[in-house]
Amino acid sequence: MLSDPSQKYLPYPDVPPFTRTWPAKRVTKAPIWLSTCLRDGNQALVNPMSNAVKLDFFRTLVACGFKEIEVAYPAASDAEFNFCRTLVETGEIPDDVAIQVITPCRAELIERSVAAVTGAKHAIIHLYNAVSPLFRDVVFRNSPDETADLVVRSVKLVKKLTAAARASTGTKFTLNYCMETFSQTEPEFAVRLANEVLEAWGDATPESKVIFNLAATVECAPPNHYADMVEYFCQNVNQRDSVLVSLHAHNDRGTGVAATELGLLAGGDRVEGCLLGNGERTGNVDLVTLALNMYSQGVSPRLDFSNLSEVVKVVESCTGLSVPDRYPYAGQLVFSAFAGTHQDAIRKGLEKQEKRHARAAETGEKKYWAVPYIPVDPQDLGYSYDNLIRISSQSGKAGAAHLLSQSSLALELPRSMQTAFYGVVQAACDASGKELTMESLLSLFRSTYHLGRGVEFNGRLRLDSFECFPSNARYTRCRVGADLLVDGHVRRIDGEADTPIAALLDALDRHVNLRFGVREQHVQELRSHRFAAFVELAEHSPQATLAKSRGWWGVGMSADVTAAKLRAVISAVNGSVGSKALPPPKLVFRARFEAAVDARLDTPDMHAGAPPEPLPQTHVSTPVVSQF
Amino acid sequence: MLSDPSQKYLPYPDVPPFTRTWPAKRVTKAPIWLSTCLRDGNQALVNPMSNAVKLDFFRTLVACGFKEIEVAYPAASDAEFNFCRTLVETGEIPDDVAIQVITPCRAELIERSVAAVTGAKHAIIHLYNAVSPLFRDVVFRNSPDETADLVVRSVKLVKKLTAAARASTGTKFTLNYCMETFSQTEPEFAVRLANEVLEAWGDATPESKVIFNLAATVECAPPNHYADMVEYFCQNVNQRDSVLVSLHAHNDRGTGVAATELGLLAGGDRVEGCLLGNGERTGNVDLVTLALNMYSQGVSPRLDFSNLSEVVKVVESCTGLSVPDRYPYAGQLVFSAFAGTHQDAIRKGLEKQEKRHARAAETGEKKYWAVPYIPVDPQDLGYSYDNLIRISSQSGKAGAAHLLSQSSLALELPRSMQTAFYGVVQAACDASGKELTMESLLSLFRSTYHLGRGVEFNGRLRLDSFECFPSNARYTRCRVGADLLVDGHVRRIDGEADTPIAALLDALDRHVNLRFGVREQHVQELRSHRFAAFVELAEHSPQATLAKSRGWWGVGMSADVTAAKLRAVISAVNGSVGSKALPPPKLVFRARFEAAVDARLDTPDMHAGAPPEPLPQTHVSTPVVSQF
Repeated sequence: MLSDPSQKYLPYPDVPPFTRTWPAKRVTKAPIWLSTCLRDGNQALVNPMSNAVKLDFFRTLVACGFKEIEVAYPAASDAEFNFCRTLVETGEIPDDVAIQVITPCRAELIERSVAAVTGAKHAIIHLYNAVSPLFRDVVFRNSPDETADLVVRSVKLVKKLTAAARASTGTKFTLNYCMETFSQTEPEFAVRLANEVLEAWGDATPESKVIFNLAATVECAPPNHYADMVEYFCQNVNQRDSVLVSLHAHNDRGTGVAATELGLLAGGDRVEGCLLGNGERTGNVDLVTLALNMYSQGVSPRLDFSNLSEVVKVVESCTGLSVPDRYPYAGQLVFSAFAGTHQDAIRKGLEKQEKRHARAAETGEKKYWAVPYIPVDPQDLGYSYDNLIRISSQSGKAGAAHLLSQSSLALELPRSMQTAFYGVVQAACDASGKELTMESLLSLFRSTYHLGRGVEFNGRLRLDSFECFPSNARYTRCRVGADLLVDGHVRRIDGEADTPIAALLDALDRHVNLRFGVREQHVQELRSHRFAAFVELAEHSPQATLAKSRGWWGVGMSADVTAAKLRAVISAVNGSVGSKALPPPKLVFRARFEAAVDARLDTPDMHAGAPPEPLPQTHVSTPVVSQF
Repeated sequence: MLSDPSQKYLPYPDVPPFTRTWPAKRVTKAPIWLSTCLRDGNQALVNPMSNAVKLDFFRTLVACGFKEIEVAYPAASDAEFNFCRTLVETGEIPDDVAIQVITPCRAELIERSVAAVTGAKHAIIHLYNAVSPLFRDVVFRNSPDETADLVVRSVKLVKKLTAAARASTGTKFTLNYCMETFSQTEPEFAVRLANEVLEAWGDATPESKVIFNLAATVECAPPNHYADMVEYFCQNVNQRDSVLVSLHAHNDRGTGVAATELGLLAGGDRVEGCLLGNGERTGNVDLVTLALNMYSQGVSPRLDFSNLSEVVKVVESCTGLSVPDRYPYAGQLVFSAFAGTHQDAIRKGLEKQEKRHARAAETGEKKYWAVPYIPVDPQDLGYSYDNLIRISSQSGKAGAAHLLSQSSLALELPRSMQTAFYGVVQAACDASGKELTMESLLSLFRSTYHLGRGVEFNGRLRLDSFECFPSNARYTRCRVGADLLVDGHVRRIDGEADTPIAALLDALDRHVNLRFGVREQHVQELRSHRFAAFVELAEHSPQATLAKSRGWWGVGMSADVTAAKLRAVISAVNGSVGSKALPPPKLVFRARFEAAVDARLDTPDMHAGAPPEPLPQTHVSTPVVSQF
């Protein structure tokens, strides 16, 4: 690169004086769309499409709602010509769809192009030549007058040929005169050419307009310059009400979408482009992005991308090009957030929106979409919310918590437990350097809180069965008796306290010599009459106060709220004991407990992915002490 | 998708009255660039970078010329914090480079962030919070006043902590206050926040400015709206001369580059973004495109991408994301043309430019770049011209001709031979449905014109050796005698005429019963004193006139111009005879010819890829009839 590029590159020229109005305008309705996927898109492919593939693509374009489709450059080869004839002769073209073909300003090619589409209901003859000084000088060696003469002669020929074809077949023809390299052409000369075309064509009316396609064949200036060029043209061309101003932007500077949007503000009526921006070099402007930009502003684009992933598939398979991960609306990573703060905001936004929409449903107000970081509802485009939040080492606690809430476990972790589990997640991500999938997140959660995939807790302690009953007449105290497996050996334990959790802790203290206090506890009601309990225990020793000592979270689930709580206690204890030696049993009882209690514990909810099923409403012989 | 999206999506709000000046402006100098590849880019990766990878990336950023680099979110994790400390403590940061770290408005995180960069020569504290109504309501549940209070308290804390750190270590600190979601915030509120920050910071001066980073965190409106927001802000913020207005655009609508370019017109002084547009969802604005857009307008971006493919490699390997084929400046297909008309124009443009530059070199004028379809010289970015023209079924004759001229053969085909060979190319592309590579193009050219890869012609006829001498005293007629291999059997032939080509045709007529006339012939002088001859023969029979009968092109190459011409004749004859039966020999001579003549024929120029070497200036015993 040159340190002083002004030695080599000239800036874009000024537009002659005009009244600039576009910056204060808004797009309020959809333009006429023309897809040139099958022509401008196809000509730039490393491996161009066969006619069979083009036909598939054509059908997709019709399904998306395109009413104007450029199908070929029929004079370029027999294959292109034959594609047109096949469309026309097999009735493939819906009555409300016009096909467009491109031809240079050469008599024999114009003739062949008109022949290619004769018989269609409505055909657009896209006559083009490059008119910028560079092309006039270097490529065609034509003066401005010679260039204008060529255009006028060509237009007259199109008129003569299409009039004859219309007379014999009834085909309606529209002229689309394209100034290739418009954006690099002197604006006055562009207007002169258009006015000479209008005169040569003769019968442009508001009912039967001539199209002027203003091509930014190569994007060489910022998008505001293109808008200025378009507005200058609109203000100076004759018979403005009998003219459709068509925009045809490329993307060499990465501003093709912007040039088109500003060009619409400047007076554009029609837009040519390709689905997902295929085309020479950096591609034509992308019609999906344009349409969905409009949609996200509440303006109907009159194109349908309700199943965008299907459109992506068709385009990818027809063109052999893949849509990048970060591509607007259509990329894999677009409806995903990895950063913690983003995840937190999305989560809150979705929750709040649900409430807002519920209220709106009651009052009859509109249900507006407003979610941080997600400008358009992915469901409108056929995507689910599954990928919204993804977990990497850059994610925060809210992300993992959100994923758990969306998982088969459907758990809403208490805030301080989110922080604790976040530390585990971050360590795992740092260790692997990779994204944590939903599956590995669940597996990490299970191993952290000793939740087996079947009926087993896979920690060292396991609550095999228990009974819980009031231990005084006023129900203010209760007694818990349980069969506790410790390292595979069953111990009969029991304890008494104000609550079942405290009674279990009393039993653990008395029989296993483990002393804990409860720092925090929460219960979540799950679907299907089930509960999840979250308990944080802290070491309770003469040396440490509860608040200062280390804490361990545990989680338990059951159709019985007491069982869920006691399981959560054992889950937390398992986290605490690690591999440290446990004292020998002080007291051992052996007993058989009712099957009902076993059933209450041995529920299928630990199976990954399996939906929780309601337990049979078995009467359990142990009294349920739900008041605790 | 909804048929009436206005039921769900609200359009962007109006900007309060201000004097809009940006649409009439131009970018004339580079902004201050900040790369956030290592922070905003990294946080959005499926697999975030390790610190070792981040260090590689950091070095690349320094090499590209970045003077401000955001390196981490140090309060988020120990790894991020440690990365900062490593940079600071190992002297990795050049003296003229400032590192930036981001922190939310929370005291303990601010403290850790300042600690992370203390000791650097120059550090920028990037303090951020989201300030739009949606975030205030949904995420933070803060009123505008509470939001402003939080910001002011945070700024004061940054001031206190950085003043202390500066006193102890000499580190220069700059405040960068970022309004996250600026583009969705009430413009008056954004100005109020900025003015309160200026007051809280206290000592912003033109020499020591405060940065206000105006983030389009999510791109929700067209780029002209962002420019309006920026210009409104610039016109209303206090102490404008002590403020750097920083732009931070994302690309959700595919207009991030445009928003930044228009934002610069609107008053932006500084741009944050990522190399090749990595970042959450659709990514941050791409700094490569922005810089090269500027460059192609003759404005130095003060960033260096002279070896762009190397930068692409680093970004791809660090992020795990690949740069799409159609990506501006950096994609594989960007400096390529497939369509015939494009190829023709590029070829003419390059030829004309070469002449123009030669004249400019003489007159001392500037050598401006002006080539159709190629807005910037690929060589400035370290690319060759090799891929400019690529051949598919959509390509024209000029494309194949250009490739041949650029190939190891370096042949400039005459125009009508281009047309003939184009038919062959198109048939091959249609048959395969694929691109024709340089290698397969050369192979197709060789088989079409019976050019062997070694010394052999692989047609049915082969000129084994020849002699050519004047057959009258005035040198107006010549005689050619030759050993011609026909289907492997040598025939001694001879003929006489005005020119060596005509004499050879006379010999072919007399001895092999093949009658041809010459329709066209051209000689090209190659490098290293060698020649290529192109000859079109047509059947010359009583039934057909030369002009109407079918023609065959042939090509021959040699250090001797006569040998090249005679070879071209035999090449064309080989094309004509195909598999048809040839008459038996009429006359047979056998003779040995000098080694020098063999050497003249058996040159190494048919070896693919081998550079033509000058033949030794051997004296050949057969008289050279160069006047013919």
